[in-house]
Amino acid sequence: MRVLVVGGGAAGMSCASLVKRRDPEADVTVLERGGFVSFSACGIPYWLGGTVEGDADRLVVLDPEEARQERGIDVRTGIEVETVDAQDRTLEARSDGERQTLAYDRLVLATGVEAVDPFEAEEADNVLTFRHLDDGVRAQEVLSSRSPDEACVIGGGLVGIEISESLADRGIETTLVEAGEALLGDRLAPELGEQLTERLRGADVAVRCGQRAEAIEVTDGAAEAVVLPDETIGADLVVVAVGTQPRTRLAEEADCSIADAGGILTDQRMRTDVDDVLACGDGVAYPHRVSGERVVQPLALHANRSGRVAGETIAGGEATFPGVLGTAVAQFGDTEVALTGLNEAQARDAGYEAVSATIEARTKAGYMPGAAPVHVHLVAEEATGRVLGGQIVGGHGAGKRIDTIAAATWMEATCEEVEAMDLAYTPPLSPTWDPVAIAARMAAREVGT
Amino acid sequence: MRVLVVGGGAAGMSCASLVKRRDPEADVTVLERGGFVSFSACGIPYWLGGTVEGDADRLVVLDPEEARQERGIDVRTGIEVETVDAQDRTLEARSDGERQTLAYDRLVLATGVEAVDPFEAEEADNVLTFRHLDDGVRAQEVLSSRSPDEACVIGGGLVGIEISESLADRGIETTLVEAGEALLGDRLAPELGEQLTERLRGADVAVRCGQRAEAIEVTDGAAEAVVLPDETIGADLVVVAVGTQPRTRLAEEADCSIADAGGILTDQRMRTDVDDVLACGDGVAYPHRVSGERVVQPLALHANRSGRVAGETIAGGEATFPGVLGTAVAQFGDTEVALTGLNEAQARDAGYEAVSATIEARTKAGYMPGAAPVHVHLVAEEATGRVLGGQIVGGHGAGKRIDTIAAATWMEATCEEVEAMDLAYTPPLSPTWDPVAIAARMAAREVGT
Repeated sequence: MRVLVVGGGAAGMSCASLVKRRDPEADVTVLERGGFVSFSACGIPYWLGGTVEGDADRLVVLDPEEARQERGIDVRTGIEVETVDAQDRTLEARSDGERQTLAYDRLVLATGVEAVDPFEAEEADNVLTFRHLDDGVRAQEVLSSRSPDEACVIGGGLVGIEISESLADRGIETTLVEAGEALLGDRLAPELGEQLTERLRGADVAVRCGQRAEAIEVTDGAAEAVVLPDETIGADLVVVAVGTQPRTRLAEEADCSIADAGGILTDQRMRTDVDDVLACGDGVAYPHRVSGERVVQPLALHANRSGRVAGETIAGGEATFPGVLGTAVAQFGDTEVALTGLNEAQARDAGYEAVSATIEARTKAGYMPGAAPVHVHLVAEEATGRVLGGQIVGGHGAGKRIDTIAAATWMEATCEEVEAMDLAYTPPLSPTWDPVAIAARMAAREVGT
Repeated sequence: MRVLVVGGGAAGMSCASLVKRRDPEADVTVLERGGFVSFSACGIPYWLGGTVEGDADRLVVLDPEEARQERGIDVRTGIEVETVDAQDRTLEARSDGERQTLAYDRLVLATGVEAVDPFEAEEADNVLTFRHLDDGVRAQEVLSSRSPDEACVIGGGLVGIEISESLADRGIETTLVEAGEALLGDRLAPELGEQLTERLRGADVAVRCGQRAEAIEVTDGAAEAVVLPDETIGADLVVVAVGTQPRTRLAEEADCSIADAGGILTDQRMRTDVDDVLACGDGVAYPHRVSGERVVQPLALHANRSGRVAGETIAGGEATFPGVLGTAVAQFGDTEVALTGLNEAQARDAGYEAVSATIEARTKAGYMPGAAPVHVHLVAEEATGRVLGGQIVGGHGAGKRIDTIAAATWMEATCEEVEAMDLAYTPPLSPTWDPVAIAARMAAREVGT
């Protein structure tokens, strides 16, 4: 069996590895446009900030040579797939200017997402986007060659926040511009959004919300400023982090259906609706467990998991992709922010009568040094009390508490059940009542049960 | 309505506060033997170790005066209840040598537990037990007046471990003696027990397992050594931490039923089987959610929760006590240890065909500084895959992950469901696959589904 995997990120490499583990005779080739495979995109901000020292290889889980030697996967980098012919079961790829035609029995589209960049400032070498480790390498080069003084980061999502703090931490005067009224757009409850903004300001990042960047001013091949409606922010480094979009060109060419949300549509076993074409990773529209909708959520765990499922399917297994809650967490300085499931507006959009509660507590017993404020917001279905999602903003130890809410949301627990859960207490790690349990108690008062 | 609460710990004070909140007219009196009410017993090791600075009041949540003024509770300290007459609805108490008779409409027994001390070395002023904040005050006095050089802690439970590390951290040469084959008796899986022992040794505590302390040698009112079967350990400070037992004398006198496990038996609303006598807190035998058995588990959250339920019951509410999993966590130095639910042997005793898996992972992405080893052990029912309990030993960030296992155990999730849960990932807080999910995947392979 000849398997071609397009894309060597977490999904593609997980898929390829799993096929080879289950079926060592399979002929598995991974075709990767960039120079790296199997790298941690999530690690880039920590590498740029200097927390992770050394060169880009530090973020590589498995290099092409190891993949060949240890796993028997034929990994090729610097090769771009140009067209797919799903009738013929072939694709055309170009590498070093040479075209070649490759045949497959199974094709896996692990093409991921690309950074959205509406600013047409490609000619400026001090304008960066982040998606691939190659982008990180370029950023590292720009940072050391240009030693920028003022940075402007456009886009207040998790990546924009992490990058802003990394840059500020390097001593660069940093402004973060977000078009929405709050950081993370409208995903956080207002009180949590305010906490997050305050904490980011405390980390020396100037935050401008409700300001849509209109243009990047470029002179002589270098960005000099970012233009907002009411002001212009001087910057000798600009980071565009306004989001990503699935790379679906090859899938469309192969005649695979695309979800309304924009990602490739698959069944639970990661098969597209075209014979012998599978898809996995960030470019896929995953089913959301709570809303029932398809969502594009470029997160490493889903990429890894969907890649494994695609691999199992190819190898004749029965694994299924269980769906997502969109759980995400970020850490910068002494701040942790996390979310899972639906927020109140999303819950209403999905047809739930939703209620919510927000509490403030501490990460530890109040008398312990380092006990930090933590805000927890919980969303529940009014009629049943079922937890639909939650959010956390707080100090060290706050973020991973989202897992308790994720587990509860996953198991369709009610607020009452979450309050009743026997969660762990010791003074240096938690107050007697975990903040999540306190939030559940407050949310339980809002529901109709 | 006249409510008498015997015992001013977390349970008694939670109960009293809740009654007054629901029914401000109620006449609520708390009778406490010791000098403090509403203190954090769990904070004592951190106060002795110097992490919490200041005097004993730092560990007091609410002092008697505040309770009177702010909550309208008549709190009396230094008063010992000697007898109860449940027919007459009276009790006799002694304070400063004077006896008084008090009448009640509702009696709440929040009498807690006392430290087990089989060594009959009370005359030695350098032998300590820990249960009450008064014990902590005495310990602090002994530590400063005697400046001990060598300590021997008898009992390798969570308290013994925390106290040992606190003493070692103060520069005292410390030996921890545990009668069982491993720390925490046989509660941890062998690999996790070994990890824990190794980590405690790394914190400069000499650990002797499988050695039952036979006697404390006392000369001229001071302990000088602890006698083990094969050796004698010189010590100018001895801590006895071999466990606790419920204080049930008053309950028995009132003719309340006592559970086989030793604690006071109540219904879900914390009523004993004697009219108008309720019980809450560490002295109660709580129902275990997984085994269905009654268990004595002196843990702060249960005390607090059962006190609230007792208060609700008295005030005419409908709250119920949901049972326990026995979730516990401890932290010392850079080590965290946590457990919830049943271990494999307990699961078998409770009638489950149990399987288990143990994995080693890291607390963060491998390339992040501070990524520390973490061991996770998961126990599941073989036929269904249902999670029955789990254990964690690892570095910073390991311990509170037990909450995910506790939530799963509470909701009767299967290992497959836990593996599928969308848990949070970011390099500084977790590897892509949370260690709990990895353990769940491994345990899922052991089950029959």
